[in-house]
Amino acid sequence: MRTELIILGVDPGLTRCGVGVIEAGAYRRLSFIHVDVIRSSIDVSQDLRLLTIWEGLNAKMDEFVPDVVSIEQVFAQHNINTVLGTAQVAGLAMVAAAQRSIPVAVHTPSQVKLAVTGNGKADKLQVERMVARILNLNKLPDPPDAADALAQAITHALHPAGELQGGEREQHLTPAQRQWAEALKKQQQNKSRMHGRGM
Amino acid sequence: MRTELIILGVDPGLTRCGVGVIEAGAYRRLSFIHVDVIRSSIDVSQDLRLLTIWEGLNAKMDEFVPDVVSIEQVFAQHNINTVLGTAQVAGLAMVAAAQRSIPVAVHTPSQVKLAVTGNGKADKLQVERMVARILNLNKLPDPPDAADALAQAITHALHPAGELQGGEREQHLTPAQRQWAEALKKQQQNKSRMHGRGM
Repeated sequence: MRTELIILGVDPGLTRCGVGVIEAGAYRRLSFIHVDVIRSSIDVSQDLRLLTIWEGLNAKMDEFVPDVVSIEQVFAQHNINTVLGTAQVAGLAMVAAAQRSIPVAVHTPSQVKLAVTGNGKADKLQVERMVARILNLNKLPDPPDAADALAQAITHALHPAGELQGGEREQHLTPAQRQWAEALKKQQQNKSRMHGRGM
Repeated sequence: MRTELIILGVDPGLTRCGVGVIEAGAYRRLSFIHVDVIRSSIDVSQDLRLLTIWEGLNAKMDEFVPDVVSIEQVFAQHNINTVLGTAQVAGLAMVAAAQRSIPVAVHTPSQVKLAVTGNGKADKLQVERMVARILNLNKLPDPPDAADALAQAITHALHPAGELQGGEREQHLTPAQRQWAEALKKQQQNKSRMHGRGM
């Protein structure tokens, strides 16, 4: 019987999309497998940028055949200039996983910082250092941006609650996240009522 | 030589994604081909909802083999509760087109209203009526939501400037849109400078 779990973490981004792969074995022993950044040029159109990221994500999933894909949660409050592209890349990662029937987990940046460093407000270097320590790397993750993708995968290994994508997931949200989720649900219900005539 | 152009318009949405297909012939004669709404259930997880929309969009592109795909522009200022899902669906439509080497056009809601009705602030019913008139439909588009997808395709037939996805497109933006595009570009440049160390 196979007991290890291959977890592919994604730090979504249109210019740089981090991908980190770890193995979670018995007794929560975590091993490093792979880390990389999929890049798209800012000089080409949005559709071609997204296609590049899409192909990169699919190639990673084909290569590492993860048991679960864990993606950083995107919030609409984030940097308004980049949030749409980031959300689109997160969506592509979800579809690439769903097409392979791989469960999708979502963890927020503060959940990741808390899980990896014990401090929900840790800075980037603290996260990098703890990722290196947890995975027994003899230097900081390279490229540095990809540390977030490894941290995302580690978080899922330690706190897999994010895997529950439906209603149950809401039990694990912070008050602010729950408020957000409720507003979102309410909005969707209103919308489906408003548009119900064609259904 | 083929002179007609098959245009597939997309009104992106996670709960309801409108798809409208028209043919633009000689002398800008426009003909109705198809209209539909791809739906995803709000009761399943985000990854499965996106997969449903992805499969629907791919099926439409396989069926109608458009020469161009025209997608409503999503702005981060829009309804904060639904904008991320809407952006994700727009991203999926872009990738589905780009995978087939189909050019992608983007037109804003006000460009669509202006092109279809002559009034950038027209209401939904005015748009529906003009779509029916332009395409010689003997009743309003059904389902009504999908009128926006047909209107998007019509806009592209009449004002194809949105096809220019790169720098040239910016010449056709309103001052607010140009400001947005500039802020976005600046942000991306800053980001790529900040993260340049690993490149």
